[in-house]
Amino acid sequence: MRMYDIIQNKRDGGVMSDEEIQFFVDGVTSGDIPDYQITALLMAIYFQGMNEHETSALTLAMAKSGDMIDLSGIKGVTVDKHSTGGVGDKTTLIIAPIVSALGGKLAKMSGRGLGHTGGTVDKFESFAGFNTELPPEQFINQVNDIGICVVGQSGNLAPCDKKLYALRDVTATVNSVPLIASSIMSKKIAAGSSSIVLDVKTGSGAFMKTLEDSKLLAQKMVDIGYSVGRKTAALITNMDIPLGHAIGNALEVKEAIETLKGNGPKDLTEVCVALASNMTMLVTDKSIEECEKMVLGAIADGSALKKLHDMVAAQGGDANMVDHPELLPLSNHIENVLAPCDGYIKHMDAEKIGIASVILGAGREKKGEAIDYSAGIILKAKTGDLVKKGDVIAEFHTNLPEKMKSAEELFLSAIEYSNKAIDAPVLVYDIISKPSK
Amino acid sequence: MRMYDIIQNKRDGGVMSDEEIQFFVDGVTSGDIPDYQITALLMAIYFQGMNEHETSALTLAMAKSGDMIDLSGIKGVTVDKHSTGGVGDKTTLIIAPIVSALGGKLAKMSGRGLGHTGGTVDKFESFAGFNTELPPEQFINQVNDIGICVVGQSGNLAPCDKKLYALRDVTATVNSVPLIASSIMSKKIAAGSSSIVLDVKTGSGAFMKTLEDSKLLAQKMVDIGYSVGRKTAALITNMDIPLGHAIGNALEVKEAIETLKGNGPKDLTEVCVALASNMTMLVTDKSIEECEKMVLGAIADGSALKKLHDMVAAQGGDANMVDHPELLPLSNHIENVLAPCDGYIKHMDAEKIGIASVILGAGREKKGEAIDYSAGIILKAKTGDLVKKGDVIAEFHTNLPEKMKSAEELFLSAIEYSNKAIDAPVLVYDIISKPSK
Repeated sequence: MRMYDIIQNKRDGGVMSDEEIQFFVDGVTSGDIPDYQITALLMAIYFQGMNEHETSALTLAMAKSGDMIDLSGIKGVTVDKHSTGGVGDKTTLIIAPIVSALGGKLAKMSGRGLGHTGGTVDKFESFAGFNTELPPEQFINQVNDIGICVVGQSGNLAPCDKKLYALRDVTATVNSVPLIASSIMSKKIAAGSSSIVLDVKTGSGAFMKTLEDSKLLAQKMVDIGYSVGRKTAALITNMDIPLGHAIGNALEVKEAIETLKGNGPKDLTEVCVALASNMTMLVTDKSIEECEKMVLGAIADGSALKKLHDMVAAQGGDANMVDHPELLPLSNHIENVLAPCDGYIKHMDAEKIGIASVILGAGREKKGEAIDYSAGIILKAKTGDLVKKGDVIAEFHTNLPEKMKSAEELFLSAIEYSNKAIDAPVLVYDIISKPSK
Repeated sequence: MRMYDIIQNKRDGGVMSDEEIQFFVDGVTSGDIPDYQITALLMAIYFQGMNEHETSALTLAMAKSGDMIDLSGIKGVTVDKHSTGGVGDKTTLIIAPIVSALGGKLAKMSGRGLGHTGGTVDKFESFAGFNTELPPEQFINQVNDIGICVVGQSGNLAPCDKKLYALRDVTATVNSVPLIASSIMSKKIAAGSSSIVLDVKTGSGAFMKTLEDSKLLAQKMVDIGYSVGRKTAALITNMDIPLGHAIGNALEVKEAIETLKGNGPKDLTEVCVALASNMTMLVTDKSIEECEKMVLGAIADGSALKKLHDMVAAQGGDANMVDHPELLPLSNHIENVLAPCDGYIKHMDAEKIGIASVILGAGREKKGEAIDYSAGIILKAKTGDLVKKGDVIAEFHTNLPEKMKSAEELFLSAIEYSNKAIDAPVLVYDIISKPSK
């Protein structure tokens, strides 16, 4: 088998055989196939696509290119959630306890923040003493004991995808439905859960710019999930609106606790209820309406918040902070940022706002750097809001007061104003919960 | 300027600006652009093409990526010929003296053979003492004195094309009209002649499988030539038929001398007359009919053969060998190869036949290896011929008698027979001698 022939065949619109896909994935993972042949094939796939069988085969081969997490020791239905993440995305902190309180088994591996995007692991570590590096046995035992455990990504998950993604990122071949779908699903499949809910972002800053393309991607991922025996559902959500108000680790934890108490921001609550209901549906096989009632019930009766409490305690964190969020890290310097003009907020550039929070100390530029859990931004106005010049539009939290000015400049440049009122944004566009056949 | 943006733009069907093309060519030549981005762009070009202006700009930038040969010291019209070459292609040995005898200035750089294809420089070196490594001044002086000089490729011609070609060769991106056209023309433009005749091969083994594609490529190259001020014409010739009977350096020289005497094989003579007439037309601006008469005249009156004689003498070779070809190197072992069955010869695999001649000692596997000028193959039957079992179909010449058997096995496997008569093959399909606008 020769990589040249595989490229030529795909270039001409042919279908890759299972053996060719395995050869490709093995060669990428081992480094035997040179990068220049990999990227030529990726561009050919960009133009010619992959059929459903090819995409599933690529996904499974990439999942198996590294460690496959074994969750067979867990009793009950394991369920995982994927999100492309983003600035201020604290949904996992909210929906994982809810779904666990309703009987789902959350054996979750999460990432750390890098650059302008935050990471769930960092957020949980805002609880003093919280340990996200547990040995596999303890991870499984905790899920069996209390139904939930969130750890950092360990081992070597889908290394082929990691290599391919790095090359796609520099060759304008990210934006291909089969390549995105197989990339996301390979990691989720390797992570071991039997049910998966996907949060597919759509909008100007997302992979998929149009709703139609997003649905296509969502359906493809759901199909892949079912083709390899994983129940899968996908929500198509609005990428252009930051969810909730808090950006920064402890600030987001506080907002998550408020949401679990039923006092969260409306938009964040709506998206979390939708995600949690769909996860619960995959776990219980009940109707979506019933699941939504159960989710609202788990918030109302405090069982979801108790689950967060138990989880923090089980992982060595200070669970008292769940009951008393004011004990979570707080910055020494808090300053208001004021609107520079009158107008409706037309657009907020999430990436710039994320970088502003990194400047305040909430994130890291490079892997391994320490972060300040207390630092971050509370948005006091969001897209669609009408503000007057001098209104407080944000609150900056930091222990680096000397950085306040440059963060503020960047933040202000991230916001566009308009004279005209803006329509209330849609949060969840669509839900794909069945395979296409 | 970022390579990523250039790839993305071309991927989406955009046009590369002159600045982007220059950035790309500079980055490829310097090594600053990594191979994996180069091949992604090449595949995007494969799918999206390049317009006429882009192709010309790429050609010129590649030509200028290395040495540009300065032929301004030559009085008269310089004319060059390009062929993709191939097994037994000795046309340069014949047409260069003809066109020179008719007033064209042939300041030609040629290559050496590698693998199954021969090289013009090796063929001329069959003349004892023939020197193909002349300093630039002597090269120019000889062209001014006698109108013709053939040397080996020296300097650093179109290094960007060399790098791109090596990557295209392993990523299934050779077969793109703008990339082929710019690759060929960049080298010819760098080589300095003001007029260029191109031999575009068509057929199963060629870049261009169909006559239509070949015409497209030919027209594109003619257009490029005119766009940079070089008069250019292209002949579309049959790739599937070996020209003449001889394969191997001294054997081909003998056949070329016979052809210059008017006694050459019909097919070889026909193609050489067509090529030489078109070159003469570019040089003299006379009609193609007149030029053809002049070419036939230069053969009939011996002036072309005399030009070969003068050239060999001027480059230090034994010109007596031109008058007495029997003095050219001759192998110690000559054996007949017999037809294994009755039938019409349906197809001859030129690559396999070329490798068989390499086994006999006529070629080299790696650059720098010595070759045996005397070794090679004389075809006694060709495509379309009817043979009977036991007929002599070839004569093998070698000084390595122990290799006779393996060369014969390969040679016999290269020939397909048929019960049915084969139509006489067309040799020259078309001639493109004007820019498209």
